[in-house]
Amino acid sequence: MKSDENWMQVAIAEARQGIGLTSPNPAVGAVIVKDDILLGKGWHRQAGQPHAEREAIADALSRHPAGVLRGSTIYVTLEPCSSHGRTPPCTQGIIDAGISRVVYGIHDPNPMHAGRAESCLQSHGVEVTSGVCTTECQSLIRAFAKKQSTGFPWVILKSAMSLDGRITRPPGEGQWLTSPKSREYVQRLRFESDAIITGGNTLCIDDPALTLRSKQLAISGQKQQPWRMVITRGSASQLPPKAQVFTDAYADRTLVQEQGDLTAALQTLADADCNTVLVEAGGTLMSAFLDAGLVDEVALFYAPMLTGGPDAGFAGVPTDIQLTDQCYTRIGNDILLRATVVHSAL
Amino acid sequence: MKSDENWMQVAIAEARQGIGLTSPNPAVGAVIVKDDILLGKGWHRQAGQPHAEREAIADALSRHPAGVLRGSTIYVTLEPCSSHGRTPPCTQGIIDAGISRVVYGIHDPNPMHAGRAESCLQSHGVEVTSGVCTTECQSLIRAFAKKQSTGFPWVILKSAMSLDGRITRPPGEGQWLTSPKSREYVQRLRFESDAIITGGNTLCIDDPALTLRSKQLAISGQKQQPWRMVITRGSASQLPPKAQVFTDAYADRTLVQEQGDLTAALQTLADADCNTVLVEAGGTLMSAFLDAGLVDEVALFYAPMLTGGPDAGFAGVPTDIQLTDQCYTRIGNDILLRATVVHSAL
Repeated sequence: MKSDENWMQVAIAEARQGIGLTSPNPAVGAVIVKDDILLGKGWHRQAGQPHAEREAIADALSRHPAGVLRGSTIYVTLEPCSSHGRTPPCTQGIIDAGISRVVYGIHDPNPMHAGRAESCLQSHGVEVTSGVCTTECQSLIRAFAKKQSTGFPWVILKSAMSLDGRITRPPGEGQWLTSPKSREYVQRLRFESDAIITGGNTLCIDDPALTLRSKQLAISGQKQQPWRMVITRGSASQLPPKAQVFTDAYADRTLVQEQGDLTAALQTLADADCNTVLVEAGGTLMSAFLDAGLVDEVALFYAPMLTGGPDAGFAGVPTDIQLTDQCYTRIGNDILLRATVVHSAL
Repeated sequence: MKSDENWMQVAIAEARQGIGLTSPNPAVGAVIVKDDILLGKGWHRQAGQPHAEREAIADALSRHPAGVLRGSTIYVTLEPCSSHGRTPPCTQGIIDAGISRVVYGIHDPNPMHAGRAESCLQSHGVEVTSGVCTTECQSLIRAFAKKQSTGFPWVILKSAMSLDGRITRPPGEGQWLTSPKSREYVQRLRFESDAIITGGNTLCIDDPALTLRSKQLAISGQKQQPWRMVITRGSASQLPPKAQVFTDAYADRTLVQEQGDLTAALQTLADADCNTVLVEAGGTLMSAFLDAGLVDEVALFYAPMLTGGPDAGFAGVPTDIQLTDQCYTRIGNDILLRATVVHSAL
């Protein structure tokens, strides 16, 4: 017999398919099991679409005769909803389906709702277990949970550097520090994100598109082009009107924040249903985000070179920013570090 | 039957035991095999001591009756010597022992000697194969080979950095960037080295001991305390006379190079039989070594933090220094990168 943890891992794998697609909702996955046999599985695909539990129930019923769910267990990465949102409550769906046991990973991050499903389900004779694979389940909803508790989206800072921390190469040495393979990986970071932030200066110098390539969009079928947020210290009228972000097919997905107001920019993006935003900017704007304590995660690509020179990459205020949950990935000859920032105040 | 490559790997593992111990000689290992059975193995332990081939022959004869070596094959990481040095030529020892076949990794890096063993052995009816596991065998003797071809030792630059390339923490944040475990690993780098180079400034500020701990010396039994070379831009008389390197039990292993002359310092160490030297210095001296193109390998420890601030770690001349053969090792929460510098001129 597989353990609850084993089955929850399958639900987590389901949930991961939704990363980048579900905002303002979190990514959630579910599997239904009876006698150690997988009856059905599902994941939440998009806000307004059925929740993972209903996807799994529908999947099971499409494969098996009615009545199969009696005596079954559903594994869900997040506590099932117990109130009416855009869709009816999942607790009711579970009860109606005749499922006998619910195992969920973590509580609803909204303290008003946390644990409600348990009492609701138990009062209908459904057995409930919670707190299974909590670290991974929490990781799935970290952006959603941050927004629930602070109102701000999860901020990922992306940069490419030499191994001595420089973010630009010496004059005449070419534009790119990292390899095409690493730059390809940036598409994955954009896919996870609901918006990409850059600076007015970068817009003037590099005129970046900041888009997900159409191939990526086509694969997902339902991913919208991420918002593009240009933060300028001046006014919007000073930005180049012919920049790609203002003139390409997704120009309606471009926003401008004036006066270099970082929190206003994040607020605007939160209001636009963004859970996760990616900062792809120059040293000054990156440092401003770090110094303001607004960064939750870093994604740093290191190229196999030392570039030297007096220009430090992130200038900013000298202070220790501690990182944790470091994950290093070798990408060709580059290395990618993803790590979360320790917010000492939290 | 194991392949030649399989047995050469055993010889390479033997050789590795000698890294840091054999200067001015290289680390060499050997195994003797007959009918796919390992008869004996050995490694060169110290200059003046028997070569790896003789160690392996003696080991085989101590375990097996005389005559066992007839029909055997010896695997050696480096071409056996064919001329009289401090010890008699190994080619003669192999012939005298009745070994039938010699497989060696790479040729003697001295072009005057390269390939000599082959003709000598073949003229005595010994079969010879060379060029097996050449990359790893070459790596074993890279410091020796560099000294043979240039007269200079192999230079490893060691540094500890934050993930944005700063080598010092902001004021009030404590002295160490990296963890005790990483600092423990520095003992391994020192063990590989015949000398440690530091700057006069570091001597004044930190008063480092720059020693191998006695435990490490005791384990090896035969490792000498590495030389300590202080490079100062001024004169020796300006250095603090009470510094540890001038007053501790190994004060006779301390050298001073005045006028900041890096090549003179390396020449002195080469004359003192050093194959490998380790630079453990501040940003200015590290940059000087990098800018002069004198660094062969970097050993960079990264601590899981961003420290910011205007002070770039390695200032130096802005130029791309390409690294290759990168090996990343996780040490607790730190990461160590060892990589060799691509010398475009070579």
